[in-house]
Amino acid sequence: MSRRRKIVKIKRRHKPGSSPGLVVPHSVAGQSIMNVLAYGPDKCVEKAGATLAEVAELKGTFPVVWIEVEGLGNTDAIVALGQMFGLHRLALEDVVNTHQRPKADDYGDHLLLIARMLKQGASIETEQFSAFLGSGYLITFQPDVEDCFDPVRERIRQAKGRIRSSGADYLCYALIDSIIDAYFPLLEAYGELLEDLEDNVVKEPHPAHVGELHDMKRELLMFRRAVWPHREMLNGLIRDEHDLISPETRPFLRDCYDHTIQLMDIIETYREIASSLIDVYMSSVSIKMNEVMKTLTIVATIFMPLSFITGLYGMNFDRAASPLNMPELGWYYGYPFALLLMLVSAGGLVWYSWLKGWVFEGSRRK
Amino acid sequence: MSRRRKIVKIKRRHKPGSSPGLVVPHSVAGQSIMNVLAYGPDKCVEKAGATLAEVAELKGTFPVVWIEVEGLGNTDAIVALGQMFGLHRLALEDVVNTHQRPKADDYGDHLLLIARMLKQGASIETEQFSAFLGSGYLITFQPDVEDCFDPVRERIRQAKGRIRSSGADYLCYALIDSIIDAYFPLLEAYGELLEDLEDNVVKEPHPAHVGELHDMKRELLMFRRAVWPHREMLNGLIRDEHDLISPETRPFLRDCYDHTIQLMDIIETYREIASSLIDVYMSSVSIKMNEVMKTLTIVATIFMPLSFITGLYGMNFDRAASPLNMPELGWYYGYPFALLLMLVSAGGLVWYSWLKGWVFEGSRRK
Amino acid sequence: MSRRRKIVKIKRRHKPGSSPGLVVPHSVAGQSIMNVLAYGPDKCVEKAGATLAEVAELKGTFPVVWIEVEGLGNTDAIVALGQMFGLHRLALEDVVNTHQRPKADDYGDHLLLIARMLKQGASIETEQFSAFLGSGYLITFQPDVEDCFDPVRERIRQAKGRIRSSGADYLCYALIDSIIDAYFPLLEAYGELLEDLEDNVVKEPHPAHVGELHDMKRELLMFRRAVWPHREMLNGLIRDEHDLISPETRPFLRDCYDHTIQLMDIIETYREIASSLIDVYMSSVSIKMNEVMKTLTIVATIFMPLSFITGLYGMNFDRAASPLNMPELGWYYGYPFALLLMLVSAGGLVWYSWLKGWVFEGSRRK
Amino acid sequence: MSRRRKIVKIKRRHKPGSSPGLVVPHSVAGQSIMNVLAYGPDKCVEKAGATLAEVAELKGTFPVVWIEVEGLGNTDAIVALGQMFGLHRLALEDVVNTHQRPKADDYGDHLLLIARMLKQGASIETEQFSAFLGSGYLITFQPDVEDCFDPVRERIRQAKGRIRSSGADYLCYALIDSIIDAYFPLLEAYGELLEDLEDNVVKEPHPAHVGELHDMKRELLMFRRAVWPHREMLNGLIRDEHDLISPETRPFLRDCYDHTIQLMDIIETYREIASSLIDVYMSSVSIKMNEVMKTLTIVATIFMPLSFITGLYGMNFDRAASPLNMPELGWYYGYPFALLLMLVSAGGLVWYSWLKGWVFEGSRRK
Amino acid sequence: MSRRRKIVKIKRRHKPGSSPGLVVPHSVAGQSIMNVLAYGPDKCVEKAGATLAEVAELKGTFPVVWIEVEGLGNTDAIVALGQMFGLHRLALEDVVNTHQRPKADDYGDHLLLIARMLKQGASIETEQFSAFLGSGYLITFQPDVEDCFDPVRERIRQAKGRIRSSGADYLCYALIDSIIDAYFPLLEAYGELLEDLEDNVVKEPHPAHVGELHDMKRELLMFRRAVWPHREMLNGLIRDEHDLISPETRPFLRDCYDHTIQLMDIIETYREIASSLIDVYMSSVSIKMNEVMKTLTIVATIFMPLSFITGLYGMNFDRAASPLNMPELGWYYGYPFALLLMLVSAGGLVWYSWLKGWVFEGSRRK
Repeated sequence: MSRRRKIVKIKRRHKPGSSPGLVVPHSVAGQSIMNVLAYGPDKCVEKAGATLAEVAELKGTFPVVWIEVEGLGNTDAIVALGQMFGLHRLALEDVVNTHQRPKADDYGDHLLLIARMLKQGASIETEQFSAFLGSGYLITFQPDVEDCFDPVRERIRQAKGRIRSSGADYLCYALIDSIIDAYFPLLEAYGELLEDLEDNVVKEPHPAHVGELHDMKRELLMFRRAVWPHREMLNGLIRDEHDLISPETRPFLRDCYDHTIQLMDIIETYREIASSLIDVYMSSVSIKMNEVMKTLTIVATIFMPLSFITGLYGMNFDRAASPLNMPELGWYYGYPFALLLMLVSAGGLVWYSWLKGWVFEGSRRK
Repeated sequence: MSRRRKIVKIKRRHKPGSSPGLVVPHSVAGQSIMNVLAYGPDKCVEKAGATLAEVAELKGTFPVVWIEVEGLGNTDAIVALGQMFGLHRLALEDVVNTHQRPKADDYGDHLLLIARMLKQGASIETEQFSAFLGSGYLITFQPDVEDCFDPVRERIRQAKGRIRSSGADYLCYALIDSIIDAYFPLLEAYGELLEDLEDNVVKEPHPAHVGELHDMKRELLMFRRAVWPHREMLNGLIRDEHDLISPETRPFLRDCYDHTIQLMDIIETYREIASSLIDVYMSSVSIKMNEVMKTLTIVATIFMPLSFITGLYGMNFDRAASPLNMPELGWYYGYPFALLLMLVSAGGLVWYSWLKGWVFEGSRRK
Repeated sequence: MSRRRKIVKIKRRHKPGSSPGLVVPHSVAGQSIMNVLAYGPDKCVEKAGATLAEVAELKGTFPVVWIEVEGLGNTDAIVALGQMFGLHRLALEDVVNTHQRPKADDYGDHLLLIARMLKQGASIETEQFSAFLGSGYLITFQPDVEDCFDPVRERIRQAKGRIRSSGADYLCYALIDSIIDAYFPLLEAYGELLEDLEDNVVKEPHPAHVGELHDMKRELLMFRRAVWPHREMLNGLIRDEHDLISPETRPFLRDCYDHTIQLMDIIETYREIASSLIDVYMSSVSIKMNEVMKTLTIVATIFMPLSFITGLYGMNFDRAASPLNMPELGWYYGYPFALLLMLVSAGGLVWYSWLKGWVFEGSRRK
Repeated sequence: MSRRRKIVKIKRRHKPGSSPGLVVPHSVAGQSIMNVLAYGPDKCVEKAGATLAEVAELKGTFPVVWIEVEGLGNTDAIVALGQMFGLHRLALEDVVNTHQRPKADDYGDHLLLIARMLKQGASIETEQFSAFLGSGYLITFQPDVEDCFDPVRERIRQAKGRIRSSGADYLCYALIDSIIDAYFPLLEAYGELLEDLEDNVVKEPHPAHVGELHDMKRELLMFRRAVWPHREMLNGLIRDEHDLISPETRPFLRDCYDHTIQLMDIIETYREIASSLIDVYMSSVSIKMNEVMKTLTIVATIFMPLSFITGLYGMNFDRAASPLNMPELGWYYGYPFALLLMLVSAGGLVWYSWLKGWVFEGSRRK
Repeated sequence: MSRRRKIVKIKRRHKPGSSPGLVVPHSVAGQSIMNVLAYGPDKCVEKAGATLAEVAELKGTFPVVWIEVEGLGNTDAIVALGQMFGLHRLALEDVVNTHQRPKADDYGDHLLLIARMLKQGASIETEQFSAFLGSGYLITFQPDVEDCFDPVRERIRQAKGRIRSSGADYLCYALIDSIIDAYFPLLEAYGELLEDLEDNVVKEPHPAHVGELHDMKRELLMFRRAVWPHREMLNGLIRDEHDLISPETRPFLRDCYDHTIQLMDIIETYREIASSLIDVYMSSVSIKMNEVMKTLTIVATIFMPLSFITGLYGMNFDRAASPLNMPELGWYYGYPFALLLMLVSAGGLVWYSWLKGWVFEGSRRK
């Protein structure tokens, strides 16, 4: 339940009517740590837990300066950082109010990119990743220390691939690509869960399956809500020809865009399958009930007339009072006659049911 | 019921065929009160219950003059105000006929913006907020005195944030943003209600849930109908590059637009969850009925044959009349034989049911 | 039934393959009456039952000449009128074949506007209103004498509002606005009907409700089909910048367009509510059946074992033949023992049912 | 069944991977007959069963030369004709492979138009009509001799309407219009069938109705699939401003386009009504079952306790063995007491059922 | 089951966060074989199992050089080939990671086209076909040796049709056309399966049908997912006016595009029919249950009162103790009276059931 709760709840950004652009300290996050990774084709300098002064020093000295802010608790530092790089106040507000939809906002000399990355762990909770892409720098914000960027950091440190010789836009792409790619293993897990459910629902349907399918549909809904706006965001970046994004990086973003499309595609397919499975389950319930009812009906149809006959000859009419009173009881073949009567009646009803084609169908076709 | 009634009812604008642009007194509202708030970066003058003459006096003397009209009863004053600022007659009609959809109409030297703000109280009723944005002035109309603008007024009075140094377009944004933000707490309340319902429907479904889910779907429908056109309105403002809206204000409007998208997003998600919950409920009803039917069937299947046997040996055939007449009654082991017969018959049927897999399933898996 | 029939039936325009532009006499309508209303800011001349010659005389002498043709029976007169004003043959065909969808066709020096107006009476049947808007004239065609234009005529006669000082385009707007506005009261009636149905379906559902909801959905479908194309028609007029429509009239058309959007909006909401109500009804049927079944099951579960016990001790085994034959019948406490057995069996089954939680649920929670 | 089969089956165009543009003889069709109708405002020459030489002779001598090819069996002749008029090979392939969707392809100096016309007879099968529209000529292909163009031919012969004085584009329009119009009577037939079904389903629902509604939905689906692409085709013709289509013909095509919109409109309405009727039927089944179950329940609820009482006093406990053994049997008012007990029990159960409101409801409200 | 598994599973492209453009050896595929087919209008050279050196030699010497790479195991060779032709690294990555959606990416001097071709065998599994179209060359990659291109190869070898005289763009079209066409026979098979199911579901519905229909819907979903992006890919090629695609080839691509539209069309129709069939099945289940319930009810309604009467006169009240105790038993016509009572009661109930119209309906109308 607790997991569900977190997914549905929406957090209001700030008090309605309060001044926009006011950077409210983010209540959950604790301190803010700044890590700087400055690099060029030849050199790479790394400074964990950097101060603002150290950032100011590194700024501009390398082709790419990546400032990672982990934890959003230290509002003053964030505002100071914003002023140092001339970031828009409203953009900073979006960074700190961590319930934004993914989007790309153009503020002239810098871009604000917001993406949602999966929290570490198997659940579907996401946290906000914000990035300011300017000329020569990339400032990223994330509420927690844990992220999925270690492979990117390694690639920078070890100068693997083209990352060291590319600009901040390529770094930005690499991070967003990591975020998008991290959705795939989770979706894969859903796929396997769905397959298991499918096997079970088709083979031996169980009431619990409906709840599970509802949960799956609901989580895929959440998934879609998380992934969908990335598509728009990336599409905007590719289409709008920002100066900050070089033509060389564009095909990579297009590739990343393709992945979001693929994610959406699979999510939609899963949702349709889940819906169809609910129908399959419901029909299996109906079919089961049908069989149960048939059994009941055939039992009742056979035994009710039989019981009537036994009841008939169990009546106590006074045979002494009148020769008309139940003479059968005194017949020599009375009992065999009654048994035969029952046999004929039961047989007739079975035969009639079989004739109508719906009584033995359940057992015949099962 | 009374709450529902108000939501569905549509009010006709005016008598069909009557002359457009005719400002019909708004029947519900009483008097009209005009409050003026004129301000610039340095100074701020406030005049509650201002007369038309006072408004005329203040007009143009400050960078921004905000004329608030509370209550739409005094048609003459509204018409006079409209003439003073050269407002379009049709636009004034839209102000007074308070069942417009949110929209932004461009009348050349002024814009008419219509939004719907939530009435104070927890329900989903909305009332019309109309604003004329011209160069240096903003005239707003609302049917009641209560609104959600106090924080904005405070920001002006206390010169908090950038509001005092910005133009009328920023003020207009600030008001619309307040209106949009006020929808979030209500939606949050729906989210919590939906979570509770979800827990209940999954754990212990109850007939009343269907009605509650129907009501929720219906109110979310109303919600969507109220929120949706704000999106178009804001989109129009951002896209159409009106002269009256400065480039500085545009990012703020875009931010506000993002919030309506977020609202729509959450509403749609809630609606899909509510629909899915109805399916879950219905399937739980089917499953319950299935179990009930199984119990009935097993009871009938076991006891009907038993009762038949008891009936059989309760018949009164005259054993004296013939040795063929119910000799079992005279057997030494007659009664034990009958009991054994019953036991075997009941046991056989239970075993058969268990074999077919559908009789004990309910209890086995429950 | 008769009402339904009329709604579904489609009337073929003309014999397939016949020459287009051929003005076939409209079978239903009888004669054609021409009324002329010519006016300018200062003067207004009215001529009911005018002849073609009189029309020709008035043509061009006033700023606006409005020729109303009521009844489409007199094809010759219509063709002659068409030739007098140089109207396109195909356009005239559309006027006479009264099953067109609303549309605006541009024929260079004149526009053909087709709208569908509600027939007088509470039903949803519509009839075709066609208008030729040219420079200085408006020719309207309608099959019946009754219409919803009397308020417009009065406004012309009494020079109310801006109508006398505006051109033919404004008159055309005024008529279309009357047609659109006339849909609101009908929709209001549907709204009230739907509210009543909603109350009933939720409070005491009845089989007849399904049929009523089906009829409502179906009529809203017809409604939508009637209203929807007006939206396109008006949108075309606003967007396409026809010379015949002055910039002053454009905001009025936009207003009218807003009303069709509002109509569509309400219709869609009603349809979704009606669909949801059918689900609510069906679920109430399921729930009722569930309760009925539970009652049956509990009755059968309690009384079948009881009857078995009574049957058991109603058997006639010969106690004289063997001490094993039903010794209970001779016990001192035999009868109390049997009663106790029944009590325990019934109590046990009730308790078991209560334990499984589904037998008393109906009564507990009802 | 045989009719259904034909609708679903798709025919592959040609062996996958075979060379496109290869004109494969159309297996079904037999010979090809060429009829030529050449006309101008003053003169009209008709030649049935023309040879290629005769076509070559007539080509260019009249303002419009209409070459009708009936039957697609003679591939050589078709290829020769194609070469004579310089038609694109791929276009010729589309003519012969008669399972194309309606479309308009522009090949520079000629247009290929493909439409699907209803086969003569009441079913929904269509056959392909292909037309090459060039300057001064129209070449049409159809697989069978029968078609719906006789009225057009008559109009040419008798110089009715504007057809003789118009170009090949007008002729092309006239043929397509005939094809589209021929759909209306069939749709009308569906409308009447649907009305009958509607009456029946609402008044006395029958299991066979579900199958009929399924068939109707399915055929309307086929219908839509046949009509829908005509809309695109005509839209393309109107929008793309081909030189071969004169401005005078454009309004006629727009008219034809309106008819396809109308067809789609009606088809969609019918489909929604059919879907809604299935719901109505299913709800009537549920309601019926509910009533049946109520009857069963009330019968069982009343008679099971009664039978229990009779069983009780039918037990054979030995009254001689103990005064506790069924003393009621010896009471003076024993039998009346038992009868009263039954009456009270039955009455009480009926009253209880009535109190719960669900037992007599069926009969009360039926 | 195993077949289903393969369809749903998604394969992650590469480790999240790893460097893009890194050509990871394709785990499944073994070796890579290169076949070269170089041809012009006059000559055609074929080299199976060519080396890189041989490819380099042939490059540029013929108007069209088609390099087929079968198997993606030899990454080095692929990278070397990419360098020889100056292919984009990211494009090469897409070739090797064989779970791309069909798309057309423009890399300036070459196009990357990705399509999915059906694996040989009747199932719906697809494998990735990638093609680099450059000026004068076409490089294609496929994971397996088997494909559907043999007819194309034959056409080249035997100089059939226009393929030898056309460029690499036409060859590329020919291959994609083969891929698209290969979907038709499979879809045809589905069509036949659906027809059989339709016949069965309508004639004698069986529980297994639901599962089959679910599987069909699911596979059509997969089918759609496979076909749909081809449409976008082809549309992009036609619309974007690449230099590499000659105007002569464009109509052929348009033709190919039409085929994908046709595929989508048929798939959607099949899906709607399958959905409708599930409804038909479910309704047949409901109808059957209704009939079964009616039979049960009529049996119970007739025999329960009868059994009650027999029970009544089976009671053992002591007639000696009181004249009020069951005097009927001593009547002369006691037994006939009881039989008559039963007859009247049974007859009355049957008549009442018949009157209510729902008891014999099942048998009457079956």
